[in-house]
Amino acid sequence: MFANTPEPPYWAVIFSSQRTAGDAGYGDMSARMVALAGEQPGFLGAESARDADGFGITVSYWASEQAIAAWKADSEHRLAQQQGFARWYAGLALRVAKVERAKLWLRPEQGDAAGQG
Amino acid sequence: MFANTPEPPYWAVIFSSQRTAGDAGYGDMSARMVALAGEQPGFLGAESARDADGFGITVSYWASEQAIAAWKADSEHRLAQQQGFARWYAGLALRVAKVERAKLWLRPEQGDAAGQG
Repeated sequence: MFANTPEPPYWAVIFSSQRTAGDAGYGDMSARMVALAGEQPGFLGAESARDADGFGITVSYWASEQAIAAWKADSEHRLAQQQGFARWYAGLALRVAKVERAKLWLRPEQGDAAGQG
Repeated sequence: MFANTPEPPYWAVIFSSQRTAGDAGYGDMSARMVALAGEQPGFLGAESARDADGFGITVSYWASEQAIAAWKADSEHRLAQQQGFARWYAGLALRVAKVERAKLWLRPEQGDAAGQG
């Protein structure tokens, strides 16, 4: 699902990950993290996809670096309460980036079309 | 697969898309675009995932905005030669962002571990 982001500039956290086999509580944790992000001030939306081999990308969008820092502190605190974070992942990449330009296009019949130049 | 990107700063093109049903030449086009990107000066790597519902995210990484502009001009020219680009997608979002910070972590047994702070 597309994130209905405002006009740039805003910030993106690009989280790429390779999952290990098996759930081991991952589904619950992931759902909590998504809910947690959605409650944070400055959260603008997120997009996520994971392929059949377990490689996934989640991009969350934020109004400011301060919003990302607050979310990072909160989420790390909560993750630290769950032992064995590393068991869920064979690899991680986390990149913080400032979005300078954006274009969104949805088919009109898809409903909430949005255009940005 | 993770992109083995250098230390920031560098640039990211975040391309999110919802595929329509059926291939209709999409697979060939997609393979050509990936190959094309790999030949471009300033291309640093790419990461891609698409879920079972056809929503996908591809992030390509670039050394500079100029490299992105050159790739955009080349790829748009080639896509224009293929009629009906829109038939492949129910929606698209394209965001250009400057990566300011990055952390990569791979399990040691995964081979080419890379650490960045």
